[in-house]
Amino acid sequence: MSKLLGELIEALRCLPGVGAKSAQRMAFHLLERERERGLKLAGALDQAMRQIGNCTRCRNFSETPVCTLCASTTRDRHTLCVVETPTELAAIEQATGYRGQYFVLLGRLSPLDGLGPQELGLGLLAERLGEGEIEELILATNPTVEGEATAHYLAQLARAAGIRPTRLSHGVPLGGELEFVDRGTLAHAFGSRQALE
Amino acid sequence: MSKLLGELIEALRCLPGVGAKSAQRMAFHLLERERERGLKLAGALDQAMRQIGNCTRCRNFSETPVCTLCASTTRDRHTLCVVETPTELAAIEQATGYRGQYFVLLGRLSPLDGLGPQELGLGLLAERLGEGEIEELILATNPTVEGEATAHYLAQLARAAGIRPTRLSHGVPLGGELEFVDRGTLAHAFGSRQALE
Repeated sequence: MSKLLGELIEALRCLPGVGAKSAQRMAFHLLERERERGLKLAGALDQAMRQIGNCTRCRNFSETPVCTLCASTTRDRHTLCVVETPTELAAIEQATGYRGQYFVLLGRLSPLDGLGPQELGLGLLAERLGEGEIEELILATNPTVEGEATAHYLAQLARAAGIRPTRLSHGVPLGGELEFVDRGTLAHAFGSRQALE
Repeated sequence: MSKLLGELIEALRCLPGVGAKSAQRMAFHLLERERERGLKLAGALDQAMRQIGNCTRCRNFSETPVCTLCASTTRDRHTLCVVETPTELAAIEQATGYRGQYFVLLGRLSPLDGLGPQELGLGLLAERLGEGEIEELILATNPTVEGEATAHYLAQLARAAGIRPTRLSHGVPLGGELEFVDRGTLAHAFGSRQALE
């Protein structure tokens, strides 16, 4: 096989969910039918990898010092939603009608991995909470052990600044079947059942 | 969302089997965890799209005028296997122990799409057959209507040059169940049943 082709196939495997077979299929597809778009992808990748940094205000991905969300004048400045990564920010933006601001931790508290308050930019967050505009801090870290611990820590930070912390509700996902919900979730949902009006 | 990020997600959709959701997942994955490999992929893509052309002898992908398969001194020069695309060449190389040479049509006879003998490089193939080295022409075009017609045409070309044409056998795939084999294949396999010794 041609050296460059072999290198392309190997390089494509950095994409999540792409193994040797898919990588080969992708390489042949681009070479046989989509050279123009392949070149465009090369350019977009190069630019994105080099130029996308983090917003100095919310730490979300941004190629400008302040991202469009933070710079927007139409977003509500009284609620701040804390997420672990830009992926979760995108998920919330796409699924909900939330119109407030965000803060991205770029991780979760995990002392064993060397991730402490400093690495998560909690100084920046505390500054933000101290500005006096924010009334509610939505804690949207993941429902994992570390995510919960991070939420707990952030809730204390919020209370100290006189801000109301809230957390996404836990329970049975909509549209699922109880039979297939994991035990922990089911036990939690059962224990925190709510009165119907 | 950042402009460059949006462009990267859009560009990733040129990959086969990658929709909006996977493209977003890939972009975030690269940005959050694999910037180095992302940059490497950009370079490999750019080089491959620009520099990979076709071998002047067999028309397979190659960045050199003659590909490594054609230049090899250890491959059998008496058999030539004709395939439609480089993808199929790779599949045969990887699945079989074939040690002969190849010729890639880069298509199949399809007059309605403007693909005639000239577009498929049949002049080059005829020259090759005329060199006198080849004894068997293996017709490995796809088992579709157009692939069969192409094989038929090539078989005549081979016979005219005094070369034995052969075709991949058709029938029930190994390891499958008859119940799930399509009717056409089953009818063919039944009609061309072979005597057991």
